[in-house]
Amino acid sequence: MKQEIKKNERVKIIPLGGLEQIGMNITAIEYEDSIIVVDCGLSFPDDDMLGIDLVIPDVTYLKENISKVKGFVITHGHEDHIGALPYVLKEVNVPVYATKLTIGIIEGKLKEHNLLNSVKRKIVKYGQSINLGCFRIEFIRTNHSIVDAAALAIFTPAGIIVHTGDFKIDYTPVFGDAIDLTRFGELGKKGVLALMCDSTNVLRPGFTMSETTIGKTFDHIFAENVERRIIIATFASNVDRVQQIINSAYKYGRKVIVEGRSMVNIITIASELGYIKIPDNTLIDIDQMKNYADKQIVLVTTGSQGESMAALSRMAASIHKKVTIKPGDAVILSSSPIPGNEKSVARIINELSIKGANVIYEDTHVSGHACQEEIKLIYSLVKPKYAIPVHGEYRHLKAHAELAETMGVARDNIEILSSGDVLSIGYDGAEVIGKVPTGGVLVDGLGVGDVGNIVLRDRQNLAENGIIIVVMTLEKYSNQLLAGPDIVTRGFVYVREAENLIDEAKSVVAEALDDCLSRKVSDWGKIKMVVKDTLSEYLWKRMKRSPMILPIIMEVE
Amino acid sequence: MKQEIKKNERVKIIPLGGLEQIGMNITAIEYEDSIIVVDCGLSFPDDDMLGIDLVIPDVTYLKENISKVKGFVITHGHEDHIGALPYVLKEVNVPVYATKLTIGIIEGKLKEHNLLNSVKRKIVKYGQSINLGCFRIEFIRTNHSIVDAAALAIFTPAGIIVHTGDFKIDYTPVFGDAIDLTRFGELGKKGVLALMCDSTNVLRPGFTMSETTIGKTFDHIFAENVERRIIIATFASNVDRVQQIINSAYKYGRKVIVEGRSMVNIITIASELGYIKIPDNTLIDIDQMKNYADKQIVLVTTGSQGESMAALSRMAASIHKKVTIKPGDAVILSSSPIPGNEKSVARIINELSIKGANVIYEDTHVSGHACQEEIKLIYSLVKPKYAIPVHGEYRHLKAHAELAETMGVARDNIEILSSGDVLSIGYDGAEVIGKVPTGGVLVDGLGVGDVGNIVLRDRQNLAENGIIIVVMTLEKYSNQLLAGPDIVTRGFVYVREAENLIDEAKSVVAEALDDCLSRKVSDWGKIKMVVKDTLSEYLWKRMKRSPMILPIIMEVE
Repeated sequence: MKQEIKKNERVKIIPLGGLEQIGMNITAIEYEDSIIVVDCGLSFPDDDMLGIDLVIPDVTYLKENISKVKGFVITHGHEDHIGALPYVLKEVNVPVYATKLTIGIIEGKLKEHNLLNSVKRKIVKYGQSINLGCFRIEFIRTNHSIVDAAALAIFTPAGIIVHTGDFKIDYTPVFGDAIDLTRFGELGKKGVLALMCDSTNVLRPGFTMSETTIGKTFDHIFAENVERRIIIATFASNVDRVQQIINSAYKYGRKVIVEGRSMVNIITIASELGYIKIPDNTLIDIDQMKNYADKQIVLVTTGSQGESMAALSRMAASIHKKVTIKPGDAVILSSSPIPGNEKSVARIINELSIKGANVIYEDTHVSGHACQEEIKLIYSLVKPKYAIPVHGEYRHLKAHAELAETMGVARDNIEILSSGDVLSIGYDGAEVIGKVPTGGVLVDGLGVGDVGNIVLRDRQNLAENGIIIVVMTLEKYSNQLLAGPDIVTRGFVYVREAENLIDEAKSVVAEALDDCLSRKVSDWGKIKMVVKDTLSEYLWKRMKRSPMILPIIMEVE
Repeated sequence: MKQEIKKNERVKIIPLGGLEQIGMNITAIEYEDSIIVVDCGLSFPDDDMLGIDLVIPDVTYLKENISKVKGFVITHGHEDHIGALPYVLKEVNVPVYATKLTIGIIEGKLKEHNLLNSVKRKIVKYGQSINLGCFRIEFIRTNHSIVDAAALAIFTPAGIIVHTGDFKIDYTPVFGDAIDLTRFGELGKKGVLALMCDSTNVLRPGFTMSETTIGKTFDHIFAENVERRIIIATFASNVDRVQQIINSAYKYGRKVIVEGRSMVNIITIASELGYIKIPDNTLIDIDQMKNYADKQIVLVTTGSQGESMAALSRMAASIHKKVTIKPGDAVILSSSPIPGNEKSVARIINELSIKGANVIYEDTHVSGHACQEEIKLIYSLVKPKYAIPVHGEYRHLKAHAELAETMGVARDNIEILSSGDVLSIGYDGAEVIGKVPTGGVLVDGLGVGDVGNIVLRDRQNLAENGIIIVVMTLEKYSNQLLAGPDIVTRGFVYVREAENLIDEAKSVVAEALDDCLSRKVSDWGKIKMVVKDTLSEYLWKRMKRSPMILPIIMEVE
């Protein structure tokens, strides 16, 4: 299909997450009656989203335009690009297109959500194109910290949009080939309207090292720790990393055990689909570990971010059912802390060290994202008219904008988009022409969206100060006090040590209540307010604390 | 006073905080009827200590041995070395010894706690010694990120103990002289029993840069931003840093405004005591700011860690009463993130960038702690028989132990102490001979120690899941249900959207209660348990959540 690009056509680019919801990567591309959606990621809750498990995008815009939506095109299989799919597909059930491993991982998720039979999906090969409505989308090979990552060339009536997805340039990848730079160059020659390029590492100068350099590091570590048991923690989805551990293990005659649910899942999928090569008799079950000496074992595990429920933390805390860290173990953290996890990573290193393990965590990881020189290389090949930096906090997008300018993109042609911005873009210009509703929908247990700001504010208050419940029973009509006021507290003070305080509080409330009732106040709202204010004032004066105060009136006829 | 060191004497070293409570630096040194205490710091609450303001050391051991305690000897004026003093002095009121600025800062704290008249304190000069019981303590000049920092040479009947406090080696300090390396060497020649040395930066190779290098950085930044308003955030206590900002401001003809309560406090004290030199007509009040052009202003502020209540955050969020960040401002973060603050620092950088500020945060800070080569230098001068690494997480202490070994300390003579360990040490040997009670005492508002594990566990549960209160009124004797069951929730779900759920829950509870009462169950404990279990099971099945459930029974005659 050859497309005519008209100079005065415009296409809409609408990020439905991103800048305001880091990790929630989802972008709608719209032209007349066609919408395609690039990625569908989730983000993890901020510190102030107490009790929340996940945050998924608000897809009201897609629901309202459901007839236009032709499908999801997915760049790769990380949570921040596919994690919200099972939730969103329940409301916007359209086909999903991705490379083989990515589809494999998505299918694992659909299975968990009982959606395997109701959602259509199609595997797309590198170099292959699909047609969705008025768009043609070509999948281009890239490199990343998960195999089968793709950039997308989206052919629209207004011009070609290139979306890199998450990427790095790896001339010597562990699996498959290097990123298809030639194709980026060919597109650049044709003329690219806009480049949407990964900004994650834009603050780092230079080039990201090849994944294979870590294989050499593993070989060195194995050579230096021949007598020890070796335990390596890394990201569950980094199949290439696990491949290199297996390679080193095989070379040094060790058996490999994989531990941690998410890692077992992905390795199983990758192995079934041929993305990882495991020599015969190398993988053993964790229950067989006892039949081998320490020096014959490599344990690959989750928990490199110090997550308290992951396998490594449980090993360090001696609550893992099958493995306990012991003096002499060599433990390698093959990862760097994700921002916000620095403290829990330090904690796991300390815990492992206290157990006597030799913890190795410097220079044992390479990033999956392009640094400045790689990003420049992509710009030099693609030569876009417009730059739309994606994937990053504001400071990253801003630095990326400056980099794009040095690469020859006109300052006015660089767009930093907020979630919900409707960018109308074409060869004759680009501007934000509107805003669609966006935001994070909170997932707590099975509840999707039933926890909002009021609930979170209450949780915050409860967390910091606890709760005091004041209960009293009044007689209907007469409003006579039949029982109470009783005071029950949770999360406030250790009551046994504060009996006096509770007694005093009770009499303060009783007095205020007496006063109310003797003045014939019959409005329960008012009575509750008096109780609340009186107690609140007393507690602040007495101990400079503001617990949540909850007066409850029971009525008896 | 010349002391005789006897080969078979032993002294006790007892950390009352430290490894298990990072930041809570407090160490008792004991010989017969004399105890001195080095430092008295506090730590800030871990993420799971919900609602807690501060954590101070449990000083039961000092209280039980109050007659022996001769005084506190303080190395420098940082919170993790003096912060718990006002709390501890209320229970262990003994004199406090420190250098001039340190005493000045301590007096500020004593004032806030109304202790100025009841606590004795004495200023000690560098090179001067004080006698406390059987100990002589000499204060030795060091360098650190606060002026007037001292190392302590503690002369005991069992030998000399050298405690470095927090230190770095700065040959060109901003104020005063370089660390007194000669004195460390002289002590080494005399013979030092044990070296207790700062481990904070032991994982970093090389040498920490001089504080004065930052002055040059400021000059460059001022030169490059002549037209802009300059705002610099740094640690309140880093007087030298503020001095250098003032120097650059003076050089470039700018007025200086100091903002943020803690910074104003310390600068006032430092200025009164002569530790900072402010040229006439340089400092102006924030209210005068409007009389000057942007290019004539430098604003020095707190909030470099992204603390949400600090001045810089309020400026970025446009809720500061007098300053709002505007496009073109140059904002310098002259600090690095304290572990755990990485995310909030990133947040403030983003917020400032979104406001259009030019945020400068790379290479704008030097550490106040010694790196590997400096630590080695101290070992080479002091040549201790024993090494007792202090100030750091376990991984730091362990790396420090390895470094001490390379510096010639016998492996068996290196002691990593846990909080409460009683190390008996002398020239004839060293071993941990016992354990004293230690731990963190939680401070919440005015309450000291009235929040413990049970309360924190409740807060955690409330924070994650909220609370459901089930109230019912029963008639005394007959146990007839007079009112309820009513259900009130907080922090659970947004009730208006979950009316069905609450109604269903109510009927589930009512049914269980009916059943109980019809079976003549009269034990309230049992009734409550049935209500709790029934509701809990229902909610888990329905929505995979476990809110705290609190049944309350009121009794009416």
